[in-house]
Amino acid sequence: MEYKLMDRAALENKLAELQAQYDAFEQMHLNLNMARGKPSADQLALSDGLFRAIEADSPMQGADHMEIRNYGVLTGLVEMRQIFADLLGVNVDNVILGGSSSLNLMFDYISQCMTHGVCGGTPWFGQEIKFLCPVPGYDRHFGILQYFGIEMIPVEMLPTGPDMDAIESLVQDPSVKGMFCVPKYSNPGGITFSDETVERVAKLKPAASDFRIIWDNAYAIHDVSDTPDTLREIFSACAQYGSEDMIIEVASFAKVTFPGACVSCIIASDKNLAQIRGRLSYQIINHDKINQMRHAAFFKDAAGVLVHMKKHAAILKPKFDIVLQAFERHLQGKGIASWTKPNGGYFISLDVPDGCAKRVVSLCKQAGLILTGAGATYPLGNDPRDRNIRIAPTFPSTQELSQAMEVLCLCIEIASIEKLLND
Amino acid sequence: MEYKLMDRAALENKLAELQAQYDAFEQMHLNLNMARGKPSADQLALSDGLFRAIEADSPMQGADHMEIRNYGVLTGLVEMRQIFADLLGVNVDNVILGGSSSLNLMFDYISQCMTHGVCGGTPWFGQEIKFLCPVPGYDRHFGILQYFGIEMIPVEMLPTGPDMDAIESLVQDPSVKGMFCVPKYSNPGGITFSDETVERVAKLKPAASDFRIIWDNAYAIHDVSDTPDTLREIFSACAQYGSEDMIIEVASFAKVTFPGACVSCIIASDKNLAQIRGRLSYQIINHDKINQMRHAAFFKDAAGVLVHMKKHAAILKPKFDIVLQAFERHLQGKGIASWTKPNGGYFISLDVPDGCAKRVVSLCKQAGLILTGAGATYPLGNDPRDRNIRIAPTFPSTQELSQAMEVLCLCIEIASIEKLLND
Repeated sequence: MEYKLMDRAALENKLAELQAQYDAFEQMHLNLNMARGKPSADQLALSDGLFRAIEADSPMQGADHMEIRNYGVLTGLVEMRQIFADLLGVNVDNVILGGSSSLNLMFDYISQCMTHGVCGGTPWFGQEIKFLCPVPGYDRHFGILQYFGIEMIPVEMLPTGPDMDAIESLVQDPSVKGMFCVPKYSNPGGITFSDETVERVAKLKPAASDFRIIWDNAYAIHDVSDTPDTLREIFSACAQYGSEDMIIEVASFAKVTFPGACVSCIIASDKNLAQIRGRLSYQIINHDKINQMRHAAFFKDAAGVLVHMKKHAAILKPKFDIVLQAFERHLQGKGIASWTKPNGGYFISLDVPDGCAKRVVSLCKQAGLILTGAGATYPLGNDPRDRNIRIAPTFPSTQELSQAMEVLCLCIEIASIEKLLND
Repeated sequence: MEYKLMDRAALENKLAELQAQYDAFEQMHLNLNMARGKPSADQLALSDGLFRAIEADSPMQGADHMEIRNYGVLTGLVEMRQIFADLLGVNVDNVILGGSSSLNLMFDYISQCMTHGVCGGTPWFGQEIKFLCPVPGYDRHFGILQYFGIEMIPVEMLPTGPDMDAIESLVQDPSVKGMFCVPKYSNPGGITFSDETVERVAKLKPAASDFRIIWDNAYAIHDVSDTPDTLREIFSACAQYGSEDMIIEVASFAKVTFPGACVSCIIASDKNLAQIRGRLSYQIINHDKINQMRHAAFFKDAAGVLVHMKKHAAILKPKFDIVLQAFERHLQGKGIASWTKPNGGYFISLDVPDGCAKRVVSLCKQAGLILTGAGATYPLGNDPRDRNIRIAPTFPSTQELSQAMEVLCLCIEIASIEKLLND
């Protein structure tokens, strides 16, 4: 029965009952953390072969005959560039490797736009610059924009991707210079842009000639369910409209091997890459080629990576199931929550009643469960309806996760009834 | 006998004789490269223990109990920060680790100044900004300044470091916002700042409150000779004058382990680090902790690094000797060249007669020997006297180096006599 249909006395009784359960959890002094999208210990162990992928007696030159232990190869080893190219369906010539962080590549790209503009255009510094931000979205994208003083315009995420009607209208404003997005298994909703959304992105005609979409393909190969999503390749979609220059794609092996110690890449049109490569030549002599070779040697090729991703999926599927089953068991039919059911990625997006997200996160914290902060999925941490919470099920063990979900669902029920009683 | 004292006929005879030798070299189709400061193959092999420094069954947590294979530890593992702190004589709290490149840290620091200013000051973007550049100097420093459109003011290097009289005067200009320098075993001169120079740097009173010195301590522990230089620690010198905020120090293990696959660090005052750390929190989740741990495990501590550096010195000393002995043998007393005699670092700075550096580099190239481009040691590649050449003796084998030096000295003689004949 939906809680909103219950009378006050029934709600008060229910709340007292839930409160007693909550008190019991508090007595347990739990220490559970679902705050960030981190792989679990058993996922990390899948990549321990990296430690012996290159040894002192391994070949120290790759296909380009360059010594990997010395300076050189500005854009990265071709072996690893090819693996990214094959996984993402792009041309290897359009792939440049970064260091261990695609976040850093995105930050640096925006930094480049600020001081040097886009492909010879006016630097963004000092101009009024706006970016479109599909919401709920990834807090670290918003962080980059905040750091550079770029105004963020929220755009609603629909089951097919961001609201393209809104985007097509907003890009008529020449101060709208770009958009950050996660096109496959979005953070936090796990939504994949539909083919039609990709098509509409490709045929956008922004007023700003220096409009750039940061296409953060963080979960391109991160299927969890047996019925994975497919994302239409963006550059081939753009090719029909000559809009390839609009896209700056990044990806990394953060959730393939070791987060923060992996290999990242940036993929862009020849014109954009010329600018990025030019900057790179002042910035660094080369990123860590040994780690690039280590990854290439461990996986051999893109097929090797996909086999590896199946092992991740086998670990992650039960965790996603625990979350979804707990939501169904405790919240279904009560009219107090809705959630996404992703086929991959690292997150589930949860909506609780308006005005309740902060209260839920706070109740959880008091009971020993750390969630991603309420509001984190919105620009400047401001969820105008205070209802969205990002659920990150990957890091805890299944046992911890089961317990965490009991606490979370309980806190959602409590916060929801409190709200009904106070309205 | 000095060539300038010889009469025209004698010079012409000498030139013909040298030209015959040059022709013989040309016939040999040599392929020699002394362009960059790269360690040689046997130096790289010294660090091959890194490949087994961490294995799959090694402890995956450091002193801070953080899993090195997962996200976290923004400022780097304390084990590696401590090693840098001990080697450089600074407080570990003032050391933040970067990725595999200190060049990238310097580039990023200037980028930060451009868009965000220094510690709350006005961003440099759009202002007239000048930097002091001790010359001859490091081309990649000049490259960063060029990229950001910063005007470069050359300051002459003396045997004691940069001309401090000039610097004390130039910093009275409020548009002079900083200086790049290599205070120990400078690139290319191998000059170490004297204690008095360090003292005078520390007590500078620049007109610009956001004046910053990029103290690129690239060769802090890179002794070659048995009578190494010592550099006075800059932050303790500054402490007397309260000028610690003026210094941004960087260092790396590029020439300790593997160039481009090592660990770098940035060292600064609490106030500067607060700004850098703030930026870092938007920029990256963490740099590669596995590689940090690999380095810390391989060396154990600062003493372990110093033992390792002795092995580098044993390889490098004969190479520096080959260069210096060839110069003495072929050029001494002829009044056509002067060179530095460094106790460490990676380079020797050579001055040929005014207007001859490009000709020497070009003659060498034609005979199969690639040198660092003439002019590279000056801002915008412009050596106003066209006389300085950076000699990088580390990469070739001793046999190749001996041959390269024969070619180089011959080309210097030819160019010098050509000039005398044309004057």
